[in-house]
Formats: sequence, C-alpha cells, structure tokens
Amino acid sequence: KMAPGIGGFGGHYIIGDKCYVGGTDGVGTKLKLAFETGVHDTIGIDLVAMCVNDIVASGARPLFFQDYYATSKLDVDLAEKVIKGIVDGCEQSDCVLLGGETAEMPGFYAEGEYDLSGSAVGVVKVDKLIDGKNIVEGDILIGLPSSGIHSNGFSLVRRVLEKSGLSLSDQLPINDGITSTVGEILMAPTVIYVKQVLEIISKGGIKGLAHITGGGFTENIPRVFPPGLGAKIITGSWKVPPVFKWLQQVGNIDDAEMWRTFNMGIGMVLVVSREAADRIIEDSHGSNPAYPIGEVIQGKGVCYA
Amino acid sequence: KMAPGIGGFGGHYIIGDKCYVGGTDGVGTKLKLAFETGVHDTIGIDLVAMCVNDIVASGARPLFFQDYYATSKLDVDLAEKVIKGIVDGCEQSDCVLLGGETAEMPGFYAEGEYDLSGSAVGVVKVDKLIDGKNIVEGDILIGLPSSGIHSNGFSLVRRVLEKSGLSLSDQLPINDGITSTVGEILMAPTVIYVKQVLEIISKGGIKGLAHITGGGFTENIPRVFPPGLGAKIITGSWKVPPVFKWLQQVGNIDDAEMWRTFNMGIGMVLVVSREAADRIIEDSHGSNPAYPIGEVIQGKGVCYA
Repeated sequence: KMAPGIGGFGGHYIIGDKCYVGGTDGVGTKLKLAFETGVHDTIGIDLVAMCVNDIVASGARPLFFQDYYATSKLDVDLAEKVIKGIVDGCEQSDCVLLGGETAEMPGFYAEGEYDLSGSAVGVVKVDKLIDGKNIVEGDILIGLPSSGIHSNGFSLVRRVLEKSGLSLSDQLPINDGITSTVGEILMAPTVIYVKQVLEIISKGGIKGLAHITGGGFTENIPRVFPPGLGAKIITGSWKVPPVFKWLQQVGNIDDAEMWRTFNMGIGMVLVVSREAADRIIEDSHGSNPAYPIGEVIQGKGVCYA
Repeated sequence: KMAPGIGGFGGHYIIGDKCYVGGTDGVGTKLKLAFETGVHDTIGIDLVAMCVNDIVASGARPLFFQDYYATSKLDVDLAEKVIKGIVDGCEQSDCVLLGGETAEMPGFYAEGEYDLSGSAVGVVKVDKLIDGKNIVEGDILIGLPSSGIHSNGFSLVRRVLEKSGLSLSDQLPINDGITSTVGEILMAPTVIYVKQVLEIISKGGIKGLAHITGGGFTENIPRVFPPGLGAKIITGSWKVPPVFKWLQQVGNIDDAEMWRTFNMGIGMVLVVSREAADRIIEDSHGSNPAYPIGEVIQGKGVCYA
C-alpha cells in the first residue's frame, strides 16, 4: 500500500508484468479565468490533459478517466459545457470516461464558481516503463510545443493581468502578429501529448519524459534524471511564445522565476539517445513538431545557456 | 466512449472477459461537520467508502484509489490527518492508493475549509458482474447495518441540528442509552462493505446490491431491479438507530422524506435468492451482522410495511 506523494508524479503499482500508473489533478486557478471569460467548454480538456500527460510520462497508455465537479448550486448548462470538454479530452487521449460525480455543496463555492478534479489510470508493461534510469551524459532533450500557459502558474498570470490593465478582450501588446485576445490566449486548452508521445515511444530510444507543469523546466526536468546528471537548455533553440515575453515584461519577473513557473512554450520534454533524437526530429512535422532544446550533462538541476 | 451519468452508479467498461468499474464521489456537506468538530482523520474513510461501496455493488473488487484535496492555503497538519483517513479507508477495502493531488486554490475556499474527492477503479469478470437482471419476485432483501448517517443527507442534518439548539458535545436526547456526543454520532465514518460483501458474493446467490446513499432506500433500491419489480420493506425488521428518530422528531420530517434521504441504519442492501438468504443470515455474526429486511414483489419502487 502506498501513500500519495504530495506533488509527485502519479503512483506506480505493479501486478504481474503490468505497471498501473495513476494521474490525478485539477486545473488550479485557471478556473478563475474560465469564470471571467465565460469559456467553460475547454477547461475539461485541461483537466484530462493534466492527468493523462502525467501518465504518458511513464510510458503508460491511459485507460480510464473519472471526473469530479463540485459547485454550491448546480447549473446544468454550465456543467454540460464542462463535461463536453472532459469528453473531448478523453477522445484526444483514447481514454474511457469511466465515471463522474457532480456534487452540490451549498456554502462551499461562490456563485457561478466550481471546482474540478480528475483522475486517470493507465497501464504499461513493466519492462517498457520509462523512468529515466538509463539516461546518460550526452543524451538529447527534445521539446514538444505547448499551446500557451497550459494549466499552471495562473495565480501569477492573474496578478500580471491585473497589473497590466488589459481586459480579456484586448490583444497582447507583445504579440508577434498573433491577433487572438488575451482571454483566448490564456484559455487555450492544454495540449494532450498522449498519441504523439506513444507513437514516438513505439519507435524506441526514449529514456525519460518530463511533463512541464507547476515548477516549470527547473523543477520538472531533473525529476527524471539519475543522480549526478543535469540538463543544459539552449534557450534560443525554440521560439518562446509572445505571451511569456509579455508576462515577464509586465510582471517584471526574472528569468529564474519564469523557468521555475512556466513551460515557456514547451509542454513535454523527452530525454532520448542521440540516434533517436535524429530520427524524432526528422519524423516531426507541421502538426506534431519536436525540437532539440538541450542535452544531458554532468551535474544537477537545469542550467540555461 | 461513455458519458458520465449524473448521479448514476459507477461506469462499466469491458475489456475481454473483464469489466472495469469506476466509482467517484465526494463526502458532501459532511465536510462542514468535520470543520465544526475538528475531526479530520476519518473523513478520508468516508471518501473511500463512498467510492468503493459503489464499486462492490457491481460485484467488483476495488483495485486503485486516487484522491484530490483542495484548499485555499495548505495546512500540512490538517492535510496529513485527512490523508491518514484515506490510507485507512484503502486498507479497509484492500485497495491501492495509486495517486493523490493536493491543490492550493487561493480564493476558492473559506479559511480552514477544503473540498475532497476521490475515485476508485475495480474489476470483476464479466460473467460475475452483479447487475440485478436475475432478480425475481420472492427474492429476499438482506440489510447490512450502517454506522449512522454515513455521508449523505448532511444539509438536512445540519438544519435539524441548528433547530435543535444542541451543541456537538451534547448527548442526543433520544439515545437508547448511547452516550456518544452528537459530534461523534454524526461523524462516525461510513462502513466500508467491501470485504464482507465480496465474501458473501463468493458463496453465491447474490443477484443485486444497492449502496444506500443520497436518495435513501426509496431511490437506491429500485435501481437494481428489472422492470415490473419493486421492494417491500418490513420496517420493524431491524432497529433504526436513535439518531434517525431524533432527526425525524426534531426536524418534523415525514416518513417518506426520511426513507428518501437517509439509510435508516442499513447502508447496503443485498437482493438474494431465498436459499442464499437463509445461509447468509445463518453465517452472519456479531461483527458482520445481516438482517432480512424485506422482499421483492410485483410492482415498482419501494413500499414500506
């Protein structure tokens, strides 16, 4: 029997030659943006993404998802929008929506607000479990692009937004030509990497996977490394989306805090052999891009070059 | 792919000869009593119970449990107490705690408050799935005793408590000699029926199982019946615990509302053949009692005789 690691990756439980992997999460204060924008039909995608991306980070295939939706007074139309997003997220991750609970909790939530959590269970053969133990110096870090902020760091995002004086229907002043509104950019649903990552894994050479969530690059990448190894990130090797530049400038946030909070445009990091890296980059294409973003070095933690 | 039935029993998903069963739930406004009594180390048992009792109601054995604990500002001591209860509940149900998430959600919850949800996945061979379809007129209803209110009906309980003027450290005025305080009686953790029910199932003759949760006898028992059949409950056949008599008297609640809200001292109802009923009652003993409480009749719904 296992106690949950607060903040840890999903738990592992081995039965015979199979390892079951659990992933459970919420979407944090991104919900407050959903309340403010009125966009409720994609927050369920974020919810599923947070859980199944953790599972696929062990090389496991998600099997089941269950959700919990709690509010003080049930608004059926609103709940249906949220659940539509959950159903979409389950489809994107080839995962079965096994159950759900809609709880009315008078006096717990402010009017029009709700909380949302989900849990997924996945499975992988024990000998295919990806746990980083074979990572060596010189392995390559491959980044898969995010759609934006994803589902972490929203308390800071909301402070910056307030300070900026922008409304959710404005465009970002730093936008590299992207004309989406602030609300659209911030609410962009989290990428579900399940199908892309399982396909890459099936071709071999994947040694470790880091889902970039709370703690950003700095805290998530080292979690997959054996002792004595660290990551060198080549910061110019991909295009950081303008929303992060805007957050940093308006919020007067130093580089270290940016890297420790946000995904900076990369939502999943693969640690792979050099041979696999060449193949993965060659195979990557428009809708499923993958960039080399750094390498494994002697040391610990993450350094940014 | 399956959409969640709002308020339904856990979902079923068949892979090969196995049916996976999901159960997900919270503990509702019993949490408010936890905040008021300061008893946080058993609410996790309630949480696990609500999920795994739903699973065992399909004849499935719970495999995994995952929890979600959300609060505005994390109080580690408090969270540890809650998680201790979850670990206890998992032990009582032979279930692995596969993962957990502790979420800090500033601005979502009042100071000192939290919400809690959980999900479990269980498994049963498809040909052993218990779904009520073989229930016939004349089958016997067996009741397994509850420990008290369990985890439903607490909004009503709290209104009655307020009306009564009693404090949580008082004894109930209607108490049949039970000297526990109101707080102790109301916070008694939900019985986890997993081991008892799986043992009874293993001996055969179980056709249907109803976990008595929100909706009480009146809504939960008919859910396991084929069309054209109903239940006759012999109301004097077990001793209704004094807390329910007190709630009814002080709250001026009519019989129909009592039966539609509370478990009335019976937390799980088994629908069994007459032969199995005789054996189950003979096998029942001090720590695992089972009473005959009624029978299956032509008709629909539940009547109380």
